[in-house]
Amino acid sequence: MRRSRQLDRPWREECGIFGIIGCADAARYAALGLHALQHRGQEACGIVAYDSVAQAFNNVRRLGYVRDHFTREDVIRHLPGRIALGHVRYATAGRKGDTAIRDVQPLFAEFSQGGVAIAHNGNLTNAQLLRRNLVKQGSIFQSGSDTECIVHLMARSRERDVVGRMKDALRQVEGAFSIVAMTRSKMIGVRDRHGIRPLVLGSLGTGHVFASETCALDIVGADFICEVGRGEMVVVNVDGVRKEQPLPRNSNRFCIFEHVYFSRPDSQHAGTSVYEVRRRIGAELAKESPADADLVCPVPDSGTPAAIGYSQQSNIPFAFGIVRSPFVGRTFIEPTEQIRNMGVRLKLNVNRSLVAGKRLVLVDDSVVRGTTVRKIASMVQEAGAKSVHFRVASPPTQWPCFYGVDTPERGDLLAAQMDPRSMAEFVGVDSLCFVTIDGLYRACGSPQGRGEAERKYCDACFTGDYPIVRADGEQQPSLPMDTSH
Amino acid sequence: MRRSRQLDRPWREECGIFGIIGCADAARYAALGLHALQHRGQEACGIVAYDSVAQAFNNVRRLGYVRDHFTREDVIRHLPGRIALGHVRYATAGRKGDTAIRDVQPLFAEFSQGGVAIAHNGNLTNAQLLRRNLVKQGSIFQSGSDTECIVHLMARSRERDVVGRMKDALRQVEGAFSIVAMTRSKMIGVRDRHGIRPLVLGSLGTGHVFASETCALDIVGADFICEVGRGEMVVVNVDGVRKEQPLPRNSNRFCIFEHVYFSRPDSQHAGTSVYEVRRRIGAELAKESPADADLVCPVPDSGTPAAIGYSQQSNIPFAFGIVRSPFVGRTFIEPTEQIRNMGVRLKLNVNRSLVAGKRLVLVDDSVVRGTTVRKIASMVQEAGAKSVHFRVASPPTQWPCFYGVDTPERGDLLAAQMDPRSMAEFVGVDSLCFVTIDGLYRACGSPQGRGEAERKYCDACFTGDYPIVRADGEQQPSLPMDTSH
Amino acid sequence: MRRSRQLDRPWREECGIFGIIGCADAARYAALGLHALQHRGQEACGIVAYDSVAQAFNNVRRLGYVRDHFTREDVIRHLPGRIALGHVRYATAGRKGDTAIRDVQPLFAEFSQGGVAIAHNGNLTNAQLLRRNLVKQGSIFQSGSDTECIVHLMARSRERDVVGRMKDALRQVEGAFSIVAMTRSKMIGVRDRHGIRPLVLGSLGTGHVFASETCALDIVGADFICEVGRGEMVVVNVDGVRKEQPLPRNSNRFCIFEHVYFSRPDSQHAGTSVYEVRRRIGAELAKESPADADLVCPVPDSGTPAAIGYSQQSNIPFAFGIVRSPFVGRTFIEPTEQIRNMGVRLKLNVNRSLVAGKRLVLVDDSVVRGTTVRKIASMVQEAGAKSVHFRVASPPTQWPCFYGVDTPERGDLLAAQMDPRSMAEFVGVDSLCFVTIDGLYRACGSPQGRGEAERKYCDACFTGDYPIVRADGEQQPSLPMDTSH
Amino acid sequence: MRRSRQLDRPWREECGIFGIIGCADAARYAALGLHALQHRGQEACGIVAYDSVAQAFNNVRRLGYVRDHFTREDVIRHLPGRIALGHVRYATAGRKGDTAIRDVQPLFAEFSQGGVAIAHNGNLTNAQLLRRNLVKQGSIFQSGSDTECIVHLMARSRERDVVGRMKDALRQVEGAFSIVAMTRSKMIGVRDRHGIRPLVLGSLGTGHVFASETCALDIVGADFICEVGRGEMVVVNVDGVRKEQPLPRNSNRFCIFEHVYFSRPDSQHAGTSVYEVRRRIGAELAKESPADADLVCPVPDSGTPAAIGYSQQSNIPFAFGIVRSPFVGRTFIEPTEQIRNMGVRLKLNVNRSLVAGKRLVLVDDSVVRGTTVRKIASMVQEAGAKSVHFRVASPPTQWPCFYGVDTPERGDLLAAQMDPRSMAEFVGVDSLCFVTIDGLYRACGSPQGRGEAERKYCDACFTGDYPIVRADGEQQPSLPMDTSH
Repeated sequence: MRRSRQLDRPWREECGIFGIIGCADAARYAALGLHALQHRGQEACGIVAYDSVAQAFNNVRRLGYVRDHFTREDVIRHLPGRIALGHVRYATAGRKGDTAIRDVQPLFAEFSQGGVAIAHNGNLTNAQLLRRNLVKQGSIFQSGSDTECIVHLMARSRERDVVGRMKDALRQVEGAFSIVAMTRSKMIGVRDRHGIRPLVLGSLGTGHVFASETCALDIVGADFICEVGRGEMVVVNVDGVRKEQPLPRNSNRFCIFEHVYFSRPDSQHAGTSVYEVRRRIGAELAKESPADADLVCPVPDSGTPAAIGYSQQSNIPFAFGIVRSPFVGRTFIEPTEQIRNMGVRLKLNVNRSLVAGKRLVLVDDSVVRGTTVRKIASMVQEAGAKSVHFRVASPPTQWPCFYGVDTPERGDLLAAQMDPRSMAEFVGVDSLCFVTIDGLYRACGSPQGRGEAERKYCDACFTGDYPIVRADGEQQPSLPMDTSH
Repeated sequence: MRRSRQLDRPWREECGIFGIIGCADAARYAALGLHALQHRGQEACGIVAYDSVAQAFNNVRRLGYVRDHFTREDVIRHLPGRIALGHVRYATAGRKGDTAIRDVQPLFAEFSQGGVAIAHNGNLTNAQLLRRNLVKQGSIFQSGSDTECIVHLMARSRERDVVGRMKDALRQVEGAFSIVAMTRSKMIGVRDRHGIRPLVLGSLGTGHVFASETCALDIVGADFICEVGRGEMVVVNVDGVRKEQPLPRNSNRFCIFEHVYFSRPDSQHAGTSVYEVRRRIGAELAKESPADADLVCPVPDSGTPAAIGYSQQSNIPFAFGIVRSPFVGRTFIEPTEQIRNMGVRLKLNVNRSLVAGKRLVLVDDSVVRGTTVRKIASMVQEAGAKSVHFRVASPPTQWPCFYGVDTPERGDLLAAQMDPRSMAEFVGVDSLCFVTIDGLYRACGSPQGRGEAERKYCDACFTGDYPIVRADGEQQPSLPMDTSH
Repeated sequence: MRRSRQLDRPWREECGIFGIIGCADAARYAALGLHALQHRGQEACGIVAYDSVAQAFNNVRRLGYVRDHFTREDVIRHLPGRIALGHVRYATAGRKGDTAIRDVQPLFAEFSQGGVAIAHNGNLTNAQLLRRNLVKQGSIFQSGSDTECIVHLMARSRERDVVGRMKDALRQVEGAFSIVAMTRSKMIGVRDRHGIRPLVLGSLGTGHVFASETCALDIVGADFICEVGRGEMVVVNVDGVRKEQPLPRNSNRFCIFEHVYFSRPDSQHAGTSVYEVRRRIGAELAKESPADADLVCPVPDSGTPAAIGYSQQSNIPFAFGIVRSPFVGRTFIEPTEQIRNMGVRLKLNVNRSLVAGKRLVLVDDSVVRGTTVRKIASMVQEAGAKSVHFRVASPPTQWPCFYGVDTPERGDLLAAQMDPRSMAEFVGVDSLCFVTIDGLYRACGSPQGRGEAERKYCDACFTGDYPIVRADGEQQPSLPMDTSH
Repeated sequence: MRRSRQLDRPWREECGIFGIIGCADAARYAALGLHALQHRGQEACGIVAYDSVAQAFNNVRRLGYVRDHFTREDVIRHLPGRIALGHVRYATAGRKGDTAIRDVQPLFAEFSQGGVAIAHNGNLTNAQLLRRNLVKQGSIFQSGSDTECIVHLMARSRERDVVGRMKDALRQVEGAFSIVAMTRSKMIGVRDRHGIRPLVLGSLGTGHVFASETCALDIVGADFICEVGRGEMVVVNVDGVRKEQPLPRNSNRFCIFEHVYFSRPDSQHAGTSVYEVRRRIGAELAKESPADADLVCPVPDSGTPAAIGYSQQSNIPFAFGIVRSPFVGRTFIEPTEQIRNMGVRLKLNVNRSLVAGKRLVLVDDSVVRGTTVRKIASMVQEAGAKSVHFRVASPPTQWPCFYGVDTPERGDLLAAQMDPRSMAEFVGVDSLCFVTIDGLYRACGSPQGRGEAERKYCDACFTGDYPIVRADGEQQPSLPMDTSH
């Protein structure tokens, strides 16, 4: 697993997947679907399509945004056919030359029975062990990606068809994975035993769509059918949809951070609106940590739904006291050393006349290293805010993720170093409060909080309670710190 | 004046200006300032800087976004110096080859006394007459831009220095203009007699900044000093700031559409917050045109402040029932003809679980041709909304603008064709109401509405009451239609 | 083997190799070496270098010319280290999307013992069989290139070190191959049993260089040491140079077309100057096929040395009656259909005043389909040449090559369809003569011609006498046509 | 006039012109014509075409080679129409940002009567005076080019039509100029009073072509009609060709360096083949400065025709002992400091086995600073040449050119600093001889040499005898040094 270098930004999802079968110009839909999933991976994107006329798999994989490549007719023209699989991801750190592009998915391999493309969201916890063994046996890895282990396991399987090979391979891997594989005539979706990462199935006319989030169904006008279940494999071909259960159906441990931050607000997971959960987190926050204030302002855009919830619960008026630049993108060259610190103004500006003389509640989704909070607090204070009460729509993030999210090491997590009171002092605000883990569970639909929750989540980043033991790498943490405040 | 080809988008400001003098690395600040003004012109950008070491003016002018060019070290390196002038604008329609780039400002000319760069926001109403005369006398125009008339008038002036030449030239032009000119050692800002387009002055350390909006002062950390007055010229050099009044100071007719749509919500005009005016328009709308509804949803992003105001006034909860894609940009290739109509989904998606079964108030800033309203209405209706009440945070736009805004001809303005009731039927909503012109003036700070307003605006697009007679082109409209409802 | 689509151009070598070990900035030398070998492959180029500081292999592979990529500091900076391997090649026909780049060499693989990069010039005649077997066993091919078979055979070898694995692999392959492989600390050069494709070793300061031709030693200032022998393996590391003979040393069958066309005139093979052989072919032609003429003109540039030889032998003055454009490159858009046929004028123009009224001998290196001859003949005739005697500095090319040269099928070879007399008529010249195979051997240093030659060549393209039986693909031709005239 | 920064390269022509009228797809022909003239200017190129359907002039101007821009369909598509004018040139030194592109021709201006595009080869000797006056009167210059003076003089002329305005303007300029101007319906070619720079007229079907050299007629298949005469203006429109004599017809002073170096060998001037003149210079050299040698080798490519002449006259065999890389272009990054000196090997390599042990005559076209000679001499000496006799196919270049050629200042011209004997020692050759000015005139067709020549040339660079007095700039040299040896 790779660790974040830029610690003051929110945690980052590693990937988004979109697969489509049975629709003319499938790659054009895939481009749209990936565009809707761009927030899940902004540094690289790829699409593989099967051209049944030329009987060839074609693929285009690029660094950069979907809109920078797959909006171009000269690119999309390379991807004819009625079946296509796409992927967005974060780029691999520290690779020189052309090697970075090799990690861009979907991966593709020719087996004796024909080609297979594979796209993966998650992280295998025994990838290093598997890789070492495969190389010893003569497999040649082309990428640094976990996913390639699955491809080599499939290549070496004695099973005759791709579905059989895939089951064979998946039984040997551990960790979090939502995978979509594509052959000339089939599309196969599968999720790990705990269902940690999301994957949904939809229908579009006579065709079918797999996607990481429902917002990608919406963009192409597809209808939601169901989520792929824990340990379940869904195979789609011209004959329709077939479901199998090749892996055990373990306890549900869907990633709670999908609700808190990763997913788009217009997506739904297990029938629950992401936007609505966030708004309810804000309401819980208002109950748990009220503040004497004139205005509730979100840190845009991620803190907005929770701020609305806080305002509605507290009856303190909601306002955009901080405005986000409509044209942010790429890194911007900062003028000189002397104003290196202004960084955050490129994205955010204070609505001076609104906040001057006001007591503010600021709401954001999470705090990682604290640098951003500090900058924002000082921006609104300079603009004349009388007091600043910072409210965070997630519990303190104290544990790294091993299931496909790029997180800092514990030592870099502010919440692992100090309690909220010290943090408030550190970042220079009048108060700083996090929603409790029980408040978060209540917002997610468990009225009794975490202890009694019917629907459990993977909340290891808040609690240190990891659902899967790691075969690779570092020691498992033994005793979670007390994270309540 | 050029007319809009894409009629269902909002009206477009033509330009933004940012000039800076007296700061090292001036062009880097200019890049930031232009980035903050990007919403005022997204198709072309340029910066001229004077390098006092090499004693040379350097310039870079490009089609595309500021962030795509002026974030690159290899570009910004070409622009050393302590004085720089930048401009963003919409590109000229229908030019082939390299001619489009010639219209990108700032324009530059060498006079006997040295070089001058000029950036302009607005539109000259006697440009065609002036141009015809100048060409007859042997002036060679390099661009299709109005601004070049001013440059040639200056070149031919008998005055000795640039300031004198500029006054000479400005006395000959009519229309709306906020202009910043730059020499080796001076920066000069000037506004037309009615102050139609905005221009402010700020200070940054020992230096000074001219900008179209205060949000551009904020991004570089400059402090607001004052607005450049009607018919006023502000000259800044090493000796400081000098104000002159070369043109008559006519009645104030600042463009009211800056408040309604053009300016960024974090900017202020005449001490009034743009965000706050928009919120108040929403409140006025709620009073004038209440609705029986469960949720108030903005059409993001431009309708958001007014929707907040509507919600606060009406006590109907506010929610983002429509979500904007965080990665919109450039045009996206649409999959096939059959889904050509889905266009708007690329930018906007409905938060299905929020709106299903609800009676909605949707709030947007303006209605041009009605196509967007229709698409959005049908999106929320498909998602299960029980009823849709559309509220518009501006009066019906019935008249084209001749002062620097790219507007459709009257025949293409929906509000010039039918009354709001017919429009509601046409776009398929349960009700459709516009704020009245008096409501708008109240939101802008005139409690008695337009008739009694102390501070008058140019509101010709709503009223047909044009402050300046046009020497060029089309007949002036004689009798404005009744625009109230 | 892929077949030529553009039949009227000369046959094309498939590849050039340049490897260097023991010199700082090795990749910069490799860029120069590849530039000198650019004529051996103009459509793609790649360099792999090992960075011993970061302990990483880095590679850059591109479509296009060496000078278009590896002259850029931002590219070469990605390739630090004291050991580098480069390759130039022709691109694969008909691949869409990004797959073309996968065939660009050097190929790279991670084995248990570490990484290996491999560059290959030649063609394996049992590649299809090998590939089918490897895929069955679970090997995943990333490219369409023969070379990858060798990499997978090495990966699956039970030998412990790379040298042992390479020997193991090479014993299983058949065909023509000059291969250079590179590890972290070694560079290994090897040639097939007959020595069909060239490979030389040189020294540069304390380092060593492998290259396809001596001209690539010259460009970096390296000294020639020796050719790699038939079936020989040369291993270079910090301890120096070690030679082994892992494959049988079969009869010498060096490709005679290297002398006729492929190699640069400033290279030497087996101590013989390529330029000098070509000049002597011209002299043989003058003896075998004299002509009554005023001027001997080459078809530039490839016919030039033979034309000089013809002139010297015949005492007919030499002149550049046809001039080559100094700026040819890429394909040029031809103005309209009506002048589609002018194509050749883009590269070649007639020196009108020189050739008008003259009887000309035109000398070119070879004739493939005859289209070029026809165009050139008609160009000089239009310019007023009285007669045109075409002399070809190679025997008629009648058989395709299976050893790494991109050749048309027999049916497209003019010389396989008709005798020289009919060809003369077909292309519209007064006479058309080829050097005989014996004349060619004499020019190569065998005074008695082919029959008695001490040093035999692979001359299958002229004689159909193939040194290696092909396991793959088409039937071997049984009876060569009589090619003498 | 700008001076050369890279002194060891040959002198550089400043420009090439190609205009075509009366042919469909005129710009495609212009692209071909400019490609044939690329040697006259390699750093920038531009084409203007008039589209009679859209009634618009379109233009594309670029830095770089013709083949890099005008081979692209997306570029050429911008230039529809039956009349087009193109230009190639050297870029302006030391301009930053986008200003360099402004000097790229053709220049374009809109007059009251319509647009005019102008392309110029040469140099005006009173440009600075004219410019100063025009700016004083209010003309705004867009470029640093002399040519723009002519455009502004035309704009200010009281004449009604473009032809009249052009005559008016030309009567006010001094210096060397071959100019082609284009309107919607006319193409106008004109040459200065002495005919210093070349310009020819040809016919192509029903259309006509102006070009700097006949090789550009050849590439499009046009037939040569005539040269534009001294002081003559040739106007072509639908009615045909009309000749006028607006300027005096002074003594013929065609640039002799066009024969020595600038023009392509396949061009003709005044009916004389450039190639043949060069060959005859070599023969003169062999008579004037014989050498005891085994081989005559050209410094490719420019020394080749003279070396052939030397060989034919002396009966010493001709050989390519030095070989030019077929893929030279752009600057190549040199590996490290330690081999910075190898530069020349990138372009040239020695044919070692040919020159080893031989006494060589090396022939080149000219010597500027002597660096190249020195490198080449040491290359062949290292390769084992026994002796090196350097012969130069032009007299010593001792005077700068003021008529459109980029030349070093006198102090940097080796031949202005020392006599040939000292030069031989300085560059390290056994002998170094230049052709005499009389030998050069004999080769150009004046059997009695310069003194008695019927056809005089501008040979100021050799003799200091300048045909035109300069109004601008530096003092005229008074006493030419003795340049004979």
